[in-house]
Amino acid sequence: MTLDAVLSRIDTTLPESVDRLMALLRIPSISTDPAHAADCDRAADWLVTELQDLGFEASKRPTPGHPMVVAQGKGPGPHLLFYGHYDVQPVDPLTLWDRNPFDPELQDTPQGRVIRARGASDDKGQLMTFLEACRAWKTEHGSLPCRLTIFLEGEEESGSPSLVPFMQENAAELSADLALICDTGLFESRTPAIVTRLRGLLGEELTIRGPAKDLHSGMYGGIAINPVRVLTRILASLHDDTGRVTLPGFYDGVTELPEDIRAQWQGLAFDHARFLAEVGLSQPAGEQDRTPLEMIWSRPTCEINGIWGGYTGEGFKTVLPAEAHAKVSFRLVGEQDPHTIREAFRAHVRAQLPPDCTAEFHGHGNSRAGHMQTTHPAFEQARAALTEEWGLSAAYVGCGGSIPVAGFFQTILGMDAMLVGFGKDTDQIHSPNEKYDLESFHKGVRSWARFLARVAA
Amino acid sequence: MTLDAVLSRIDTTLPESVDRLMALLRIPSISTDPAHAADCDRAADWLVTELQDLGFEASKRPTPGHPMVVAQGKGPGPHLLFYGHYDVQPVDPLTLWDRNPFDPELQDTPQGRVIRARGASDDKGQLMTFLEACRAWKTEHGSLPCRLTIFLEGEEESGSPSLVPFMQENAAELSADLALICDTGLFESRTPAIVTRLRGLLGEELTIRGPAKDLHSGMYGGIAINPVRVLTRILASLHDDTGRVTLPGFYDGVTELPEDIRAQWQGLAFDHARFLAEVGLSQPAGEQDRTPLEMIWSRPTCEINGIWGGYTGEGFKTVLPAEAHAKVSFRLVGEQDPHTIREAFRAHVRAQLPPDCTAEFHGHGNSRAGHMQTTHPAFEQARAALTEEWGLSAAYVGCGGSIPVAGFFQTILGMDAMLVGFGKDTDQIHSPNEKYDLESFHKGVRSWARFLARVAA
Repeated sequence: MTLDAVLSRIDTTLPESVDRLMALLRIPSISTDPAHAADCDRAADWLVTELQDLGFEASKRPTPGHPMVVAQGKGPGPHLLFYGHYDVQPVDPLTLWDRNPFDPELQDTPQGRVIRARGASDDKGQLMTFLEACRAWKTEHGSLPCRLTIFLEGEEESGSPSLVPFMQENAAELSADLALICDTGLFESRTPAIVTRLRGLLGEELTIRGPAKDLHSGMYGGIAINPVRVLTRILASLHDDTGRVTLPGFYDGVTELPEDIRAQWQGLAFDHARFLAEVGLSQPAGEQDRTPLEMIWSRPTCEINGIWGGYTGEGFKTVLPAEAHAKVSFRLVGEQDPHTIREAFRAHVRAQLPPDCTAEFHGHGNSRAGHMQTTHPAFEQARAALTEEWGLSAAYVGCGGSIPVAGFFQTILGMDAMLVGFGKDTDQIHSPNEKYDLESFHKGVRSWARFLARVAA
Repeated sequence: MTLDAVLSRIDTTLPESVDRLMALLRIPSISTDPAHAADCDRAADWLVTELQDLGFEASKRPTPGHPMVVAQGKGPGPHLLFYGHYDVQPVDPLTLWDRNPFDPELQDTPQGRVIRARGASDDKGQLMTFLEACRAWKTEHGSLPCRLTIFLEGEEESGSPSLVPFMQENAAELSADLALICDTGLFESRTPAIVTRLRGLLGEELTIRGPAKDLHSGMYGGIAINPVRVLTRILASLHDDTGRVTLPGFYDGVTELPEDIRAQWQGLAFDHARFLAEVGLSQPAGEQDRTPLEMIWSRPTCEINGIWGGYTGEGFKTVLPAEAHAKVSFRLVGEQDPHTIREAFRAHVRAQLPPDCTAEFHGHGNSRAGHMQTTHPAFEQARAALTEEWGLSAAYVGCGGSIPVAGFFQTILGMDAMLVGFGKDTDQIHSPNEKYDLESFHKGVRSWARFLARVAA
């Protein structure tokens, strides 16, 4: 059976696969830092060469920001698009890393062998699982298992400013039957998972202004309005005592979980106590009439991600500040409309402003929740492949985070996305000492090989 | 009449008086900055020499921080102690100054002639009004008008850490019939004023902790407690809708204004609209059943002076922060007890903590409100002298700020304090481009001369 040959090749050539990943990890492609623009470019070049080596017609495509990599590979059967991103998060604070984040190393840890480097998990290691699977397949078969488009972005960690225009301008070239996205993880670091529900995200930055300048609380305390007090009152009013968001109309479009999904999620036996204990918590703090998985996968939230105003240094300063600030975000589900909610938030703030205060708003992007149709045969093919490789029944799961590209594939290119990834909760993505388990990488490559075999069958 | 001769001497020697003040202003005695320790020492030396020149037995007295200057001057009649401070605020941001803050200059402005420099008003210019009055008096009379102790501090702008122990250790030497403090201003920049009521101050720094580390709001949003949300709810609960502080027992010891004081304050015809308009406000924001002067002079407050937590940089980061912080202060009046209120605040915070959250507190000093007995004859002598010099009836007023030294004179040395000063609201103390009107300085010196003449009579 040819799959066995492919899997065997993957096993025996694992050191070379790791070497290729390490070469990519050595390129410090931090997209948010202009000083690393040339490195982003270099990472794109490296991937173009890699894809050409695999027989793809590959090219680096300019954008106003960092380039995209687009590659077309001929093959029979369905047309799949694979998406990943080659850019990485910044590495501050560098002092918390145990080594140079761009000098990758295989390390033996009590939990097994890991590849330690910035981007090892997010997303270079993950995207390379697919390319290495293609390589093993190609080597054994001489051709790709199906028609494949590879689409790699270099701005995912900095808000993807070029993504939508690029998709719009190149819609014909990027359209396929289904998108594959490899940027998620195993459920509870163990169970292979296909994400079919993603929460949307809406960000708002709010500035409340009062006095024309900072005032002394001895001279003005009691008579002058204090914007920090105004801000805390407004923010505190965003939730009621049961944890529900109070914005009028906020829950419009929030649907209850279908019974089949609810049953599947119950089958996952989520250990929320362990999940919380790992970060020093003991109790689910959200809506008390919801299960923990509902709280993070299917319920909307409103959170304060940042707040600042007045004197925040050492010691004390009795200042009545002229302004106060907050960054607030909403996780969205179902058919919640980001624009409607943005307006409801702004109206709610304005309605509570006392005399002499003004509010200024700055929007920080928005995306609707994503719900994937799992009717394309690739979904069941992937479930079977994952179950076979990992020895545990693969699950359709939700994801509390937002992966906007999945929504763009739906709205701009008219195709659903299948999100499969092999990251673990311990990967420290976006943090110092990021790693990717060698097991994630190795079994990730094998998972894709098993999937491709089923697609080609 | 000898007072005329003293006043005439003050007028004709004003340029020399200004020169002496400028010499003191050239010494950058920033007490909070260790790099300026030698400058503080130099300012103390300069004052010792000056006081010796006036016939005082003066010396620089070491403390664990910056030195005190203590001088004893013999004379008949009552024993008065004069207090001022020779240290100044930092000068940041330097770019907002129109000149070197330690290169004083006489400038002609549309509002009259001013002495521009850091410390010109707070407090070098003010303390020099008294020394220059003594100089003119001594020159005309050959002796001081009464027994005088001069007590100058070098740590007022950095929390006066050495003040209480120094007063305790030198209580006998520093005890007098009455303390004079020259560190306040004219009422509405125009009416000469004697402050007889000061609000106390209590500072608290609060940290709310939740998760063991910063969390991603995609992964944890909805299930994990957010310390910033907890903090805003707690802070918002400190006031009710009418602006009253909700802490149990907070108003214990808050007394209503005596009728004579209320009548005097009404007589001041405080232009609160102008007072607020100067800082961009239009409406008194405090307790709505109180007059504006009550709000700032005789009512307690609770204010948030600083707040911070989560991501506060450019752009957006969907973090659920591990902790959130606030600096909160209370202005106290009447017999409110700072220790009781501190405990009430901490109990109020703790009572509202949800599961998995902890609160940590750090106290930032405390002082009770000060109420001066105006029975010492010096009070009426000062009122008469000020009224004569300024051509407007001098008033007993309140002060919304806290001048802890006034309380220490009462509690440690058993004497009341008379607070007289000539600063204006436009002096920009603690801010860039600090100035002292030449009129404040000149008429300030003349005011003290008139006062000394009455004391000596």
